[in-house]
Amino acid sequence: MRASVLSDWLAQRLDRGSAQPVYRQLHKLLQQAILSRELPAGARVPSSRLLAAELGIARNTVTQVYEQLVLEGYVTSATGRGTFVADTSPDEIVGAAEIGSMQTRKKFGVSGAALPVGEVATNSHRAQGAETLAAAAPAAAAIGMESATQAQRPTARALSARGTRLITSAGVSKRQGGAFMPGVPDVSRFPARVWTRLHNKYWRSLRPDLLTYAPGGGLALLRHVLADYLRTSRSVRCSPEQIIITTGIHQSIDLAVRLLSDPGDTIWTEDPCYWGVRSVLHVSGLNTRPIAVDTEGLNPSADDFTAPPPRLMLVTPSHQYPLGMVMSLARRRMLLEYARQHQCWIIEDDYDSEFRYGSRPLASLQGLDTAGQVIYVGSFGKTLFPGLRVGYLVAPEALAESFATASAELYREGQLLQQAVLAEFIAEGHFTSHIRKMRALYGQRRQVLLDAVSRRYGDALPAMGGDAGLHVVMQLPEGSDDRAVAEAALARNIVVRPLSGYYSSRERANPGLLIGYACVPDEEIAPAFDTLAEAIDTTLPAFA
Amino acid sequence: MRASVLSDWLAQRLDRGSAQPVYRQLHKLLQQAILSRELPAGARVPSSRLLAAELGIARNTVTQVYEQLVLEGYVTSATGRGTFVADTSPDEIVGAAEIGSMQTRKKFGVSGAALPVGEVATNSHRAQGAETLAAAAPAAAAIGMESATQAQRPTARALSARGTRLITSAGVSKRQGGAFMPGVPDVSRFPARVWTRLHNKYWRSLRPDLLTYAPGGGLALLRHVLADYLRTSRSVRCSPEQIIITTGIHQSIDLAVRLLSDPGDTIWTEDPCYWGVRSVLHVSGLNTRPIAVDTEGLNPSADDFTAPPPRLMLVTPSHQYPLGMVMSLARRRMLLEYARQHQCWIIEDDYDSEFRYGSRPLASLQGLDTAGQVIYVGSFGKTLFPGLRVGYLVAPEALAESFATASAELYREGQLLQQAVLAEFIAEGHFTSHIRKMRALYGQRRQVLLDAVSRRYGDALPAMGGDAGLHVVMQLPEGSDDRAVAEAALARNIVVRPLSGYYSSRERANPGLLIGYACVPDEEIAPAFDTLAEAIDTTLPAFA
Repeated sequence: MRASVLSDWLAQRLDRGSAQPVYRQLHKLLQQAILSRELPAGARVPSSRLLAAELGIARNTVTQVYEQLVLEGYVTSATGRGTFVADTSPDEIVGAAEIGSMQTRKKFGVSGAALPVGEVATNSHRAQGAETLAAAAPAAAAIGMESATQAQRPTARALSARGTRLITSAGVSKRQGGAFMPGVPDVSRFPARVWTRLHNKYWRSLRPDLLTYAPGGGLALLRHVLADYLRTSRSVRCSPEQIIITTGIHQSIDLAVRLLSDPGDTIWTEDPCYWGVRSVLHVSGLNTRPIAVDTEGLNPSADDFTAPPPRLMLVTPSHQYPLGMVMSLARRRMLLEYARQHQCWIIEDDYDSEFRYGSRPLASLQGLDTAGQVIYVGSFGKTLFPGLRVGYLVAPEALAESFATASAELYREGQLLQQAVLAEFIAEGHFTSHIRKMRALYGQRRQVLLDAVSRRYGDALPAMGGDAGLHVVMQLPEGSDDRAVAEAALARNIVVRPLSGYYSSRERANPGLLIGYACVPDEEIAPAFDTLAEAIDTTLPAFA
Repeated sequence: MRASVLSDWLAQRLDRGSAQPVYRQLHKLLQQAILSRELPAGARVPSSRLLAAELGIARNTVTQVYEQLVLEGYVTSATGRGTFVADTSPDEIVGAAEIGSMQTRKKFGVSGAALPVGEVATNSHRAQGAETLAAAAPAAAAIGMESATQAQRPTARALSARGTRLITSAGVSKRQGGAFMPGVPDVSRFPARVWTRLHNKYWRSLRPDLLTYAPGGGLALLRHVLADYLRTSRSVRCSPEQIIITTGIHQSIDLAVRLLSDPGDTIWTEDPCYWGVRSVLHVSGLNTRPIAVDTEGLNPSADDFTAPPPRLMLVTPSHQYPLGMVMSLARRRMLLEYARQHQCWIIEDDYDSEFRYGSRPLASLQGLDTAGQVIYVGSFGKTLFPGLRVGYLVAPEALAESFATASAELYREGQLLQQAVLAEFIAEGHFTSHIRKMRALYGQRRQVLLDAVSRRYGDALPAMGGDAGLHVVMQLPEGSDDRAVAEAALARNIVVRPLSGYYSSRERANPGLLIGYACVPDEEIAPAFDTLAEAIDTTLPAFA
């Protein structure tokens, strides 16, 4: 394209009525012309004065576009000689076929690891090196050869093996609403006014130290307040230095697993257990060994004990998730003893320990541990609101500093202002007062639900696990299809989860439904349960 | 201990002057007596009436303590017969030596996978099974045998191999303050008033959907606003569905790496590169292949090209981190072509692209990609404030849904209220206006710093990489010890980072200092640089 041809080509394409500024349009059109080689490498572009005149636009606009194109490497500008289209063809991919092609490689500026003192990075080096261009043909041949080996990687340009496993086994639901969704607290009762008051207070102070990255482990104040809380409420033995603030259970477990285990290691998990945890474990290369639970919690079989000892165990002693039983003291001591003998780590997920109806919460497993082998994890997701994303981990004393370092290194956390708000919220007593209120509220809703269940089904379909937490498990007769029931319920806008989905395999699964009562207003529970019962009766005709 | 002996023992230990309630003291003392076998299994504890009288405390207190101990499995209560100390010795670890020992195992309630309908979890089952107790001796023998095999696991009860590597190579600093800390924006200029106004508005509405878990990918409104922003400002080709909101670069890279690669896969990284990224990659099992950079950015050698192609590449084309050069168009096209031929993924970290002085930001590499092989990542950590923890990832169209699912499954994100605030902050124009202001401010500080450097050292120690970002790199003479200089500076409360720490090895490293100017007030820059110069001159006497 000669200069005037280029002007015509541009004039035809510039749209003065467009919302896009002329500057941007011209920039894009020139890029396009260069990339498509309509403006070939080495061609001289019209002077800014000439082009501006031919297009009837401000010269300054053209100058700015040219400057941007120089910066981006599309054109090069030689003082007094004009502006030329740069060679934007891809750099050669050297050496794939023969190392000898190294000599023919395009070289601009200084390449290699050594960085010359005084060399400032700009693209204008390309102009200086333009005469050393070599043909691209050998590279193409090299690519052809490589493509043959490429065929041996069938999974290329798709998800990885671990990614595929993650996606195909994902348990996360896209549903956000609907009655009986398990694990969702009633956030409408959250003391938003107190929270925003504290929030505004910290924002007004505009303390830079609260707006930057978190030191490893989180805000010192929150770690202190939490250590006090966990010592008195959960009998956890810890100093503030052992507390690591995380974004929740997922991150706490991710951190512990990465620090304490290697790919190929085994972890004992409860069967059934929380679906989300399995993905976190698998993606870190762990093999899970599902261990059955009975009325006393984790119940390893003779086979489990004869197998090579695991590196880690993950348990929910306070309130087995999702079934709700409490791990007996004898079982706790057995686990601690086994872990001590076999040098394994125990991750104690103290899920839902705050919401216990009719009895004080049990002391933590960590508090019984004298060997520093328990990692205690918990979160504020259920006690305050899930979207808060604040959890914590209590590291063994000997590893506390490593955990803090690893947390900062891996996650580069922040959110310190929110942590300050939370610390003050706890220190001022709002946290325990909120828990007390919510426990009363949830206890009442739980009772309404249990009444509705027994009124409808008597002993035929008993509900269990309701001593604590935010859901009950309604058992279904052996052999019944709880997924089908859950789907029938979903069609009626009732969100329950099939219990079988929490087991490691269909063979080991017991059918049942997780029914979350916490976020359903009292008066809606019985009607919603009637709707659920309709779904049950339709799907399991024996109960109709 | 007989009943009266127990009362005496308790009376001696109860401290009525203590801040700890009598209830809690009594509970702990009884636990202690039982665990230590001073109160042996099977012993009858005094009635609550008797014990209360002997201790001179309310009977109700004793009753509550007993109830708690029953719940915890320390004592069992048989109606009409009294309360007895339970057997709290650890359950036997069966089968380790011989499966035959299975028969002697303690069994309470129903064990095994089958969960009986109607069985509600309590610890009272222990009482019923108390007569089937077996001796613990065989288990001890079994443990002894296992301990022998245990000796073959030298790393047990320590950090894992990946954990050890993570901790020993951690680059994170505990320092939070001090002049010249690189990568820290000036948060004191953040428009806190606007932010809190929006924040309060959303809290007032108390929308439950903003307080719960995030749907995969984040808040729809923010994804829309961001897609618009990235399309117009960074020439990124994307729909809102391709945007995944993350907590920052670390999580974005973690997500991409886990979905797209498997342990043992290779990733090309720039040498030097951001220290934090290496840890994230290694902990996911990737092998990094450090690729030298030159003035045009990533510059693979013939050896790199002849090696088996990597699964992933991680590049910073807009502004190489930490050196600051812009990747040339030819190099970009070469990378895209190589990735297309060899089916690798490119992660484009668009670090600091917003802070470019004297020129418009360059278009993204993602915008040049026609094969859907680029994953674009960015964050608001530098443009707003680091503690915000909001980043984003633009997934290839074909994988957008998988990325959203994996994000929810792995991280269980929330923070939707904050995302709503951010979306409105951007939509109302505060974001671009803030960037504009900060760019002017940082540009000015950068100039003050560059002037100070050249006034002191002329061409001897040039500063580079200052065209964009929040730091410059001052090069030190070949062979000089930049770590020693940084330490000498730290002793003077000046926080600079040694450039050599960003390289994959000491052999490939060039010495230099990263000097962050963004959060140093204008008038403090020259004095702080004088202090830094003192440290340089002391450590490198040639420059004194």
